Amino acid sequence: MSGQLKEWDRIIIGIDPGTNVMGYGILGVKGKRPSMIAMGVIQLSKIGDHYMRLRRIYERVQGLVEQYLPDEMAIEAPFFGKNVQSMLKLGRAQGVAMAAALSRDVPIVEYEPRKIKMAITGNGAASKEQVCEMLRRILTIPSESILPQLDATDALGAALCHFYESSRPQPSGSSAKSWKEFIARNPDKVK
Amino acid sequence: MSGQLKEWDRIIIGIDPGTNVMGYGILGVKGKRPSMIAMGVIQLSKIGDHYMRLRRIYERVQGLVEQYLPDEMAIEAPFFGKNVQSMLKLGRAQGVAMAAALSRDVPIVEYEPRKIKMAITGNGAASKEQVCEMLRRILTIPSESILPQLDATDALGAALCHFYESSRPQPSGSSAKSWKEFIARNPDKVK
Repeated sequence: MSGQLKEWDRIIIGIDPGTNVMGYGILGVKGKRPSMIAMGVIQLSKIGDHYMRLRRIYERVQGLVEQYLPDEMAIEAPFFGKNVQSMLKLGRAQGVAMAAALSRDVPIVEYEPRKIKMAITGNGAASKEQVCEMLRRILTIPSESILPQLDATDALGAALCHFYESSRPQPSGSSAKSWKEFIARNPDKVK
Repeated sequence: MSGQLKEWDRIIIGIDPGTNVMGYGILGVKGKRPSMIAMGVIQLSKIGDHYMRLRRIYERVQGLVEQYLPDEMAIEAPFFGKNVQSMLKLGRAQGVAMAAALSRDVPIVEYEPRKIKMAITGNGAASKEQVCEMLRRILTIPSESILPQLDATDALGAALCHFYESSRPQPSGSSAKSWKEFIARNPDKVK
């Protein structure tokens, strides 16, 4: 497996952490071309104990990081939820997945679901099926291998969204959040 | 250090995870007597990057677990928060701390702040100072060593609360959540 992985210039792991189902997608980039290496779903709903679910997420993500040696992790992260209870649970699921990446020095980036849908389909309100269909076309994945894993496509979408975001040329200083930050990042532009 | 730790019958690590300050307290139990082994605070507010904060929490808790080899982890866990944003952040901080315990097979228990205050002072609405003063008396800690670490006392309080909760005799079957669970735990009582 590691021999095959060397073919890729860059590997991005996408994670869609949830407390019932966790999706993951591994994206490989060769030159400017992204391809799917793997995708899958971890069913958690049958595990009754909350901590055992968190442990399963942690161990599975750590296993994926060790297996695919990704350069970055992209997480689908909703910033708003139904209530404080569900957000605390989601935060914990995200936290254990992040710990698995951070413990292996894998940098993390987050994308809102709307941003991912927009990047993949051009429509921030696209359905799961539309995201799936676009991913299938862009990454030339056969229907039979993507359809049974509809919950994993959000994760693969997060990875592809990050590939797009990080590949496009950034206008200098455009993402600086303040004048102070702009100066710090562009010392030569301030006389 | 490991030679000294062998003296204890049981070691409980208490954690009060936050995104600005994380407190910890290590409680040792010899026979029926609890004592403080260590307590401290991890300042996170100076770390600008959110992920670096999470990483610091993970690495610090993992370090404490490796150093003190606790039998259990008690976490102070508020179930309600100001808003969904703060709960997501709190969930992440809890998640990375939990990952550090789960990866070392340390079981986790949670206590609400109110429950901890009640267990330590008899008043669920006690102030931080009152909790601190009671901990000082119960565990005979000199004032000068506990007062500068007011943020760590909630963590030590969580550990002591768990010691009390797990030490008191449980009425048989009282905490079973269902008839099925009751039967599973008390097979001899069902004919």
